[in-house]
Amino acid sequence: MTDRIEADYLIETAFPPDQAAEAMAGEQSSGTFIALPGETPELKARAAARVEQIEDLGPVAGPSLPGAGRPDGAHRQARVTLSWPMGNMGLSLPNLMATVAGNLFELQWFSGLRLTDLRLPDTFMASCPGPAFGVEGTRGMAGVKAGPLIGTIVKPSVGLTAAETAALVAELCAAGIDFIKDDELQADGPSCPFADRARAVMAVINAHADRTGKRVMYAFNLTGEVDEMRARHDLVAGLGGTCVMASLNSVGLTGMLALRRHSQLPIHAHRNGWGYLSRHPALGFDYRAWSVFWRLAGADHLHVNGIANKFCEADDSVIASARAVLAPLSSAHPAVAMPVFSSGQSARQAHATWAALGRADLIYAAGGGIMGHPEGPTGGVQSIRDAWDAAMAGIPMEQAARESRALAAALKRYGS
Amino acid sequence: MTDRIEADYLIETAFPPDQAAEAMAGEQSSGTFIALPGETPELKARAAARVEQIEDLGPVAGPSLPGAGRPDGAHRQARVTLSWPMGNMGLSLPNLMATVAGNLFELQWFSGLRLTDLRLPDTFMASCPGPAFGVEGTRGMAGVKAGPLIGTIVKPSVGLTAAETAALVAELCAAGIDFIKDDELQADGPSCPFADRARAVMAVINAHADRTGKRVMYAFNLTGEVDEMRARHDLVAGLGGTCVMASLNSVGLTGMLALRRHSQLPIHAHRNGWGYLSRHPALGFDYRAWSVFWRLAGADHLHVNGIANKFCEADDSVIASARAVLAPLSSAHPAVAMPVFSSGQSARQAHATWAALGRADLIYAAGGGIMGHPEGPTGGVQSIRDAWDAAMAGIPMEQAARESRALAAALKRYGS
Repeated sequence: MTDRIEADYLIETAFPPDQAAEAMAGEQSSGTFIALPGETPELKARAAARVEQIEDLGPVAGPSLPGAGRPDGAHRQARVTLSWPMGNMGLSLPNLMATVAGNLFELQWFSGLRLTDLRLPDTFMASCPGPAFGVEGTRGMAGVKAGPLIGTIVKPSVGLTAAETAALVAELCAAGIDFIKDDELQADGPSCPFADRARAVMAVINAHADRTGKRVMYAFNLTGEVDEMRARHDLVAGLGGTCVMASLNSVGLTGMLALRRHSQLPIHAHRNGWGYLSRHPALGFDYRAWSVFWRLAGADHLHVNGIANKFCEADDSVIASARAVLAPLSSAHPAVAMPVFSSGQSARQAHATWAALGRADLIYAAGGGIMGHPEGPTGGVQSIRDAWDAAMAGIPMEQAARESRALAAALKRYGS
Repeated sequence: MTDRIEADYLIETAFPPDQAAEAMAGEQSSGTFIALPGETPELKARAAARVEQIEDLGPVAGPSLPGAGRPDGAHRQARVTLSWPMGNMGLSLPNLMATVAGNLFELQWFSGLRLTDLRLPDTFMASCPGPAFGVEGTRGMAGVKAGPLIGTIVKPSVGLTAAETAALVAELCAAGIDFIKDDELQADGPSCPFADRARAVMAVINAHADRTGKRVMYAFNLTGEVDEMRARHDLVAGLGGTCVMASLNSVGLTGMLALRRHSQLPIHAHRNGWGYLSRHPALGFDYRAWSVFWRLAGADHLHVNGIANKFCEADDSVIASARAVLAPLSSAHPAVAMPVFSSGQSARQAHATWAALGRADLIYAAGGGIMGHPEGPTGGVQSIRDAWDAAMAGIPMEQAARESRALAAALKRYGS
């Protein structure tokens, strides 16, 4: 590892790829659209970004995005690696963002540009808080030694009062759940104020813990301004809660860092809005690259969608995201986050998820897949637990369903 | 104005648009992929989003984005307006974001989805800090009563030391500039630490103000963590500085709100990264909608690109953005921000900008267009001032150039 920051991009251009890559490097470091007297050889040596590698991927039917120069030219895709000296932005995640993912998406040279990976020197990563809990810390707090944390989302997404939420949580605790999260739409609205919800829910969770020894992990959505988040965190921690949740695209890197610097609890990081950052394949971010920022900022849990989800993401992309957040960034600074599988999940996807990922260090969150189970939440949780136990033991889904009424009912309920 | 939040979208779908719109409304409020017992009529009345309007725009060659259901179907575009009760998210900009621009971009119903406008009740806006200075406050601080603030960006973008930056600022002050900004790549790197730069630059600006009575406005890029931003702000304010700058997509809404709640100075808001939010016409955000968040969070100056820019945005889009941020959100809460024209600007675009916008309440920032002028920065500033004076007086560019050597030289230097 050098002391330079490296970023990989997928580009599409009608210009020669090496010229386009040089334009990127110039725009994102010492260059401007016209040669200036101040850009001396000494300054370039100090600050210029460098094109490290170009791999021409050949012609494409283009342009993928409007506004590029030479719209009628022959468009090609290429993989490009740029590097920057750390001295340009210092040890700062927010400023790293402006460098590797700032103005360059708008350059006329490109009819497509996507940040696909990001590698940082250990010196840089040492300055970032990173996840305080990750997989092992979360398992410890939730009391789940092996297998996935089986979780759910409070549904309906928004509209339940604090008391209604607590009543639902009581039902879910009784059903044997490991993890519950607020929906990202529910934070501190007047119909369900955060403090009321936290008090009502924690009363239920604490009573259940007193009775059973099991303290269900509840991720309270504290998304808000910095002072609000700190106060909400302190309330949750004081009530014996074990997790807080924030919407990353709402709080931003600076908001997330402020939360992480204050937090004593695992941070459940919700990626809502990810669609606008990623859905066009020639624009925006690969999750592998984007999640590096949030891992280093302190996300303990990161949403990755789920197999056969209700959204538009393909299964291989979901699995690539989960693998990425489970892979250490370096041996000194692994910053491993726990992937959260969520969106249209039920017992039906357990085997496919295990087969594709080969790991169970994850949160498996089902909303309708638990609460809509014919036998209610107890059946829903049991069906998912039985499915995962079978998958990890190498027992096929159909065989497992013959031995688990809950699983058989789930497979029937949640289609094929 | 009702007490509901309204958002407009451009959608593309192969499903009947009314069904697709109902799916959006459900996903972003009380619904999930499966009917749940908790979604009672009372809860729906309290929390459900509503489809207010649908305008079918007819068939398109689709799908624009991959991953949508019915990829082989006949795709149509439509304009859709949804509304939400404020009670869902409370008076919170970060939580508003998750509601109007969260998971919905990933729904399989859509092969395209873009947030195009956003209307908020006065009650909501009253809870937002909004810009503290805006146009009038900025004019007062900069001592520019009429016409644009003529500005520049420190170039080379990154790599100058604090002393080199200050030397350049001295040259720019002598040249008669109104406004200078850091590049978004320059914040607090070890080659040019923020505190060193602020002290060196403000010594120059203060000396110039003492000599001439003119205090040049310098937007110091303080992008960073919350405590860093607060400390940097206090340093700048203590040194007599009159502006700070932050990269919006780096700090996020929560970071921006923390800065605004603390700041005593105009906040220059940089939109770097806007390309990944907007460049595909069927995905992401129109600037009109996106900028509402940042205006209400407290941006005094908002970047809008420029006419004939070096990026890929068309001129009419640039002007629409500038008009949007200059238009009051409501009479009680105008939240007007000053548009910043920047990117490949020189004297050449003054007439076109004036003709298209009909307003001069803006910052006109030229990097190479000032520092690359044949007569140096003095000629660069003079050329832009002469061009704007002529434009506002109704004198054509060519005629003005016959009376201004600096303008004539600029027109020659910066092409046609």
